[in-house]
Amino acid sequence: MDFEIAIANVILAIAFIFVLAKIASRAFTKIGIPGLIGEILLGIMLVSITFDGHTVLDWIITGLDPGVNVKDQDFTENLIYVLSELGVIFLLFMVGLETKVSDLTSVGKAAVIVAIMGVVFPFLVGYMFLSMSGGDLTSSMFLGAAMVATSVGITARVIKDMRLMDVKESRIIIGAAVIDDILGMIVLAIVSGMAGEGGSLDITSIITVSVTSVVFVLLVILAAAKLVPKIYNKVHEKRAEMIRTNPEYIPPGYNMFVIALGFCLIFSYLADIAGLAMIIGAFLAGMIFAEHAWEWKLEEKFESISTFFVSFFFVHVGTEVEINSFINDPGLIVTALVLILLACITKYVGCGLGAKISDRNADMTSVSIIGVGMVPRGEVGIIVASIGKSLGVLSAEWYAIIVMMCIATTIIAPPILSKLYSKKYTPAYAIRDSDRL
Amino acid sequence: MDFEIAIANVILAIAFIFVLAKIASRAFTKIGIPGLIGEILLGIMLVSITFDGHTVLDWIITGLDPGVNVKDQDFTENLIYVLSELGVIFLLFMVGLETKVSDLTSVGKAAVIVAIMGVVFPFLVGYMFLSMSGGDLTSSMFLGAAMVATSVGITARVIKDMRLMDVKESRIIIGAAVIDDILGMIVLAIVSGMAGEGGSLDITSIITVSVTSVVFVLLVILAAAKLVPKIYNKVHEKRAEMIRTNPEYIPPGYNMFVIALGFCLIFSYLADIAGLAMIIGAFLAGMIFAEHAWEWKLEEKFESISTFFVSFFFVHVGTEVEINSFINDPGLIVTALVLILLACITKYVGCGLGAKISDRNADMTSVSIIGVGMVPRGEVGIIVASIGKSLGVLSAEWYAIIVMMCIATTIIAPPILSKLYSKKYTPAYAIRDSDRL
Repeated sequence: MDFEIAIANVILAIAFIFVLAKIASRAFTKIGIPGLIGEILLGIMLVSITFDGHTVLDWIITGLDPGVNVKDQDFTENLIYVLSELGVIFLLFMVGLETKVSDLTSVGKAAVIVAIMGVVFPFLVGYMFLSMSGGDLTSSMFLGAAMVATSVGITARVIKDMRLMDVKESRIIIGAAVIDDILGMIVLAIVSGMAGEGGSLDITSIITVSVTSVVFVLLVILAAAKLVPKIYNKVHEKRAEMIRTNPEYIPPGYNMFVIALGFCLIFSYLADIAGLAMIIGAFLAGMIFAEHAWEWKLEEKFESISTFFVSFFFVHVGTEVEINSFINDPGLIVTALVLILLACITKYVGCGLGAKISDRNADMTSVSIIGVGMVPRGEVGIIVASIGKSLGVLSAEWYAIIVMMCIATTIIAPPILSKLYSKKYTPAYAIRDSDRL
Repeated sequence: MDFEIAIANVILAIAFIFVLAKIASRAFTKIGIPGLIGEILLGIMLVSITFDGHTVLDWIITGLDPGVNVKDQDFTENLIYVLSELGVIFLLFMVGLETKVSDLTSVGKAAVIVAIMGVVFPFLVGYMFLSMSGGDLTSSMFLGAAMVATSVGITARVIKDMRLMDVKESRIIIGAAVIDDILGMIVLAIVSGMAGEGGSLDITSIITVSVTSVVFVLLVILAAAKLVPKIYNKVHEKRAEMIRTNPEYIPPGYNMFVIALGFCLIFSYLADIAGLAMIIGAFLAGMIFAEHAWEWKLEEKFESISTFFVSFFFVHVGTEVEINSFINDPGLIVTALVLILLACITKYVGCGLGAKISDRNADMTSVSIIGVGMVPRGEVGIIVASIGKSLGVLSAEWYAIIVMMCIATTIIAPPILSKLYSKKYTPAYAIRDSDRL
């Protein structure tokens, strides 16, 4: 090594950011707003508040001494970036864990129609909006992709809090959100693949990228649906056979958590090689383990590990938002407000229409529940924006606008959704998980 | 940031090292050797096997392209170091979690005598050995400190595998190992504090450092024994009171895992400020949560997070061992063999004598079980050696020798221990946890 970092300062920086993020998250959940928003706002504050000519972040990452040498500072900034990247990889793996192929086949027509309508409307509107604002093809498509995302986590939490998991609307929302995740990943794969190709309009390269991504995703879904159950059953049958012939036989234990972690990291890298975003690999790796996630306690274990990592992601998202240029430009604020409005309307109309098409007898409250339930973009939209920014496709301004849109939709939807639910059902409030840190 | 790293290569390096480490660990546990030894040997191989003029480690950390620019390589080497440091911090936190103050007070005379004798003998012999080989005061004391360590994890695993947790010898060993941990931490604190002072012989500074460390450790033990139960009971009483007056009252949930993680990181930093090793802070933070660790599922959750991090520590330990210079110097090999012998004899005689003193009627098998059970140095001795090396007190040669000693004692003791146990008891073999990855 040419230089060795001051390890205690690095640990201090990690400790500081972790503790502050958790406090911010806790403070926001206390007032009923998803914790990740607190973490993003913390990130924004860390780079916009300055003391003595240095940002708070600079103070933290230099062991409270911003006069320290540049190498250490550079290292720690990159370290936070790596931790945040691992955080988002683990996060998407967990989303994948919740995406069971068997759910997809059993979820029925309604969820499929809701999902497709909820993808098409926002994508087209997002695409046209940036196109008309002078954006090129790839950046316009990226905005479309960011508009597509649905954060099932936010809505699921509202539903869980109200203990209304089993009503029809909830099942449609969760089912549609799962399909939405997969469609969203395909859209992202195509869009980021195109950006990698230099955003060429060449129709053959668009087709190549689209086919690659779709094949990649479908192959993994097929593996999850067919190959994994086959292996699983074979291993179990063989063990049963061994135990029958030899009652003393102790089957070898496998630590499925370790195997899942390995898959998660390797698939992320493979996705990158295939020209896709790493999180797509992580998501697909999660899908492979989804069917037995509960049996192997994978959700619990990934929950622990992502408790550590994920905060770094949202704080990092915030540090990338250049709020000062935003505040000083009323034009940007207007653009953001319009985009927020469009984001709400397109999902509401798209998914609501989907719900109405699939069941003509659905009353207005049902349709609204499904429409509003699909509005929050949460972390998924933000992830798409981060990728767009790191690929150089989205400008700092558009990145900030999309993050604002995701924050706004995530804050607006939950209270409206719980009002709508209360109109139709009597919720049985549980001890709120969201009251926890 | 002045430069931004190639994130996919960094993730690849992490994936590679993680997967290889787990395979090595698995392979070794299969043949009955603790997995950490496989991880250390992997680390040694990564830096001693070369392809095309570059070590395997270089290939891995440069995204399979050792011609990459130095900055990326530098970054990733330091990143592995940070991950390994976090690994050892979480590891020591977990050791702390298992160190209940209430166990200490109930464990009785025998464990105390065994522990003290098992600290004094190895320390004095280790100190004298390096002193006579020409080492200065601090390095000699560091070797003494490394000789003191007992890895309760290794012995506990043997005992658990045999389901002999409740026999007298096992209780004495576990109790003594707990006390040993605390004494070892105090010795390490004093020795590393002295090294920080430039290894001066000045008697007042030795006293200052000793007093600081002992006070620091005792304060935390006192807090764990008195303050924490007080807060815990107060919160519980208040909640009971609230529920009595208002049956609708839902107590706020706290995510104790997040709080514990925060304490772990902050205490590590505080220990560094106090001039102690960071792991001492982590260990003490763990002790604070030990009493309720089970209730809050902290062991499980830290197990998940350290599954990811700890492998990096042992691999990193291996990469620091310069095996080539070792192999080419027969003198070093002889020294290592002598030290291994001394390490076994001093613990065996010290602890065995302690067992005999505390119970004159103890038969030879009992005495031997206790003596052998305390022999493995495992990760604790290695950690002391790493600190000595990073402080510049231990030379590369002595670091390698101590690592060898720790590996040897860890491999030698378990089979002898299980033979001795079998002589006296009929073990009820469980499904071996050590068969897991």
